[in-house]
Amino acid sequence: MYLYREIEAEWAANIAKGLVRPGEAMPSVREMCRRKQASPATILAAYARLEGKGLIQAKPRSGYYVSAKAGHLPEEPRISSPSSAPTSVQVGDWVMRMLRRDIHRDQTPLGAAFPALELLPSLPLSRHYAKAGRVLGREALAYVLPPGNPDLLRQIARHSWQWGAGLLPEETLITSGCLEALTLGLRAVARAGDIVAIESPTYFAILQAMENLGMRALEIPTHPRKGMDLDALATAMKKHSIRACLLAPNFNNPLGSLMPDSHKSRLVHMLGKAGIPLIEDDIYGDLHFGEKRPKPAKAFDRKGLVIYCASFSKTLDPGARIGWVSGGKFHPQIMRLKVMNTLVSATLPQAALAAYLETGAYEKHLRRLRVALKDQVQHMVMAAQRHFPEGTRISRPQGGFTLWVEFPQRIQTLALAEAAEREGISLAPGPIFSAGGHFRHCLRLSCGHPWTAYLEEALRTVGKLCHTPG
Amino acid sequence: MYLYREIEAEWAANIAKGLVRPGEAMPSVREMCRRKQASPATILAAYARLEGKGLIQAKPRSGYYVSAKAGHLPEEPRISSPSSAPTSVQVGDWVMRMLRRDIHRDQTPLGAAFPALELLPSLPLSRHYAKAGRVLGREALAYVLPPGNPDLLRQIARHSWQWGAGLLPEETLITSGCLEALTLGLRAVARAGDIVAIESPTYFAILQAMENLGMRALEIPTHPRKGMDLDALATAMKKHSIRACLLAPNFNNPLGSLMPDSHKSRLVHMLGKAGIPLIEDDIYGDLHFGEKRPKPAKAFDRKGLVIYCASFSKTLDPGARIGWVSGGKFHPQIMRLKVMNTLVSATLPQAALAAYLETGAYEKHLRRLRVALKDQVQHMVMAAQRHFPEGTRISRPQGGFTLWVEFPQRIQTLALAEAAEREGISLAPGPIFSAGGHFRHCLRLSCGHPWTAYLEEALRTVGKLCHTPG
Repeated sequence: MYLYREIEAEWAANIAKGLVRPGEAMPSVREMCRRKQASPATILAAYARLEGKGLIQAKPRSGYYVSAKAGHLPEEPRISSPSSAPTSVQVGDWVMRMLRRDIHRDQTPLGAAFPALELLPSLPLSRHYAKAGRVLGREALAYVLPPGNPDLLRQIARHSWQWGAGLLPEETLITSGCLEALTLGLRAVARAGDIVAIESPTYFAILQAMENLGMRALEIPTHPRKGMDLDALATAMKKHSIRACLLAPNFNNPLGSLMPDSHKSRLVHMLGKAGIPLIEDDIYGDLHFGEKRPKPAKAFDRKGLVIYCASFSKTLDPGARIGWVSGGKFHPQIMRLKVMNTLVSATLPQAALAAYLETGAYEKHLRRLRVALKDQVQHMVMAAQRHFPEGTRISRPQGGFTLWVEFPQRIQTLALAEAAEREGISLAPGPIFSAGGHFRHCLRLSCGHPWTAYLEEALRTVGKLCHTPG
Repeated sequence: MYLYREIEAEWAANIAKGLVRPGEAMPSVREMCRRKQASPATILAAYARLEGKGLIQAKPRSGYYVSAKAGHLPEEPRISSPSSAPTSVQVGDWVMRMLRRDIHRDQTPLGAAFPALELLPSLPLSRHYAKAGRVLGREALAYVLPPGNPDLLRQIARHSWQWGAGLLPEETLITSGCLEALTLGLRAVARAGDIVAIESPTYFAILQAMENLGMRALEIPTHPRKGMDLDALATAMKKHSIRACLLAPNFNNPLGSLMPDSHKSRLVHMLGKAGIPLIEDDIYGDLHFGEKRPKPAKAFDRKGLVIYCASFSKTLDPGARIGWVSGGKFHPQIMRLKVMNTLVSATLPQAALAAYLETGAYEKHLRRLRVALKDQVQHMVMAAQRHFPEGTRISRPQGGFTLWVEFPQRIQTLALAEAAEREGISLAPGPIFSAGGHFRHCLRLSCGHPWTAYLEEALRTVGKLCHTPG
């Protein structure tokens, strides 16, 4: 990359991160020449590009300053206000459409929430796969019956110690990804016709699973930063016979919201008193942007009513399809359901991941991954702010790698996603995150990929499409 | 192994296979000395052991003859006569118990139907796993979205050509084992409360899946050699509103029954006329003891109403958890259900199996495997006949590797399985193969392991336990 481009990228990031704030001076050209060992022409070229993007502006005889708009964070999306009646769920067709788009890798990947493969430790993992094959020999072909590979269960329990309480290996079961964990949890505690309270918006595959199982979704208003509104939940519990609650307190997909610990504690207490099981999706929990790994709601569970679900699909090895569920008092029933659903999970991936975790490299990898994802999310926020229409609200994720965008009402994201598809850009339109078809003017952006000019261009295109009459 | 033991095993097998029949003379001791380059003492030792087992008997001054009882096949089990009302299903606890037993490999493995690992091509497979890891590199970590790895889909379609019509790759989807294929099929065509017609006995995991999904099982009388009784099915169709039919025309587990082609054709026609989908379990279809690979019912399907399910778990690589479903007109719905259930199946196993199949080694492997399994089944039949009580009926499987035993009514196999467990022997008691708790005096024996004195001893123990008052 040319040096002026590097300098441009570095300072765009600094501005996005708030390291320099609106109105503050940029380093002088002379100072930058010294720092970067570069010519004034190079620095001026970088600054000109930053100015072109509206991030900085020149003041005559005074140098460059961060422009007022640049550091200004866009407004957050509003707290959701879904209908207060349970709905039967029908989002399947839209999701299949998006996934089909993302099979074609030539589309710009803003739709499905996959981490870029270059962020994952493919080399050490492939060595562990090869080694596991050699070590297991013939046993690589054998079933590993539920609860799964004991070494892997031990490593997962050990990993969970970082958030304090930790999981009990004897209550934990290996699944084929987090989605199987969640659906087994749902099937363990609810039946067709039952009402399940969920966040609004919520991850579409959950909605689809409920759709197929004939369960009714009760969408609870959800704050874009603090998660599910517990007062609203309490009201709903009085009005409806809620059979279970399913949510992601740590970085809801798509919001990136983080429920404060005090709320988690209240949630678990509230549900516990009513004897309502909580199915907790913690798949993004390790991807926190703050200092500390947030606790899951499971850490506040004293009654065994929390069914904790997670996986390695967003952080380490999507292709392995290895997740886990720690089912509290529902563990025996979940074990039975696993046997009925897929019987066992693949043998070699379990052994390879156990060996990789054993080395301790996972925690180091996560530290690097979190820095990268936080950076990518910030770039996406900035670009969305630059290119999306006036009045667009953007979430402030505190972890994970999805961004939630609330456009002005006139912009219909189902139509927008179709238009973007024609331009080779994959998007996840808002309504697929709602059982009741809400969020017609919202959009989820996946920030799984390192920031490039290519992504900037895609955002610009989406912004332009917003102005085109559907 | 000592030579006299080898000779004993060889002739026990010859008798089992009917190569020498009751009343026929065994080769003379002198002849055998010549053939085997052995001493008369060795031959006499082998013959003495065969005599001890009641397989041959000495006639004074005339030599040895195959004894009358030896070649006498036991009676087959009766055609089942389950209750004609749909039942809700509850077999989960028993199955978990059996699987837990089989986790402990120190138990003699007559319970769960796994093929012995030594019968599977572990060495070439492990080379293909390692190679796939190298070839894929970083891509080994990526999701392979439904329908799955295209090379594997192509190989599966190619493999299916051997039975004539073959599967359409564009209607086929990779699943996490055959069980996921079957449960997705069930969920695609039936809901809670619906009636599904099944064979009686039928594979317990199917019953469990139906139990959890709240579907009602209608057990149809099933012939131990010809499969489901189609007249009984026709009667049931008049009486009940049947939503779907699920069966294994090729080698039902546990019966090993093989539905004749004319019956398959009639079955598909009958159901097609009524618009009832058929979910076909063909997991054992490649393990035929006869010359030709039997056609599945799918081969007779003209309306796209047959949902064909199979996997590599019984024939090649159980640990890979790779199956497939070819859903006819239900394919789009099954694709959606896959996305809701486990999203995708593990990446590396799909690539490794595709590469292995590409070499053509699978067909060669299957030829060897079929010979081994047929031999193991015959040994098990013989041993059961030797050790089980008078009046025991034994199935004559035409493929697969499970044997169905019908004891005299007084023998309760749930109690028998518990007693055997205490003796270190894992058994699958009859009632877990029935929604209505039938088959209390029946037992499934897995013949997945090469015949050894160890298995002979286990059968002897089970036989003794039959005589112990519960």
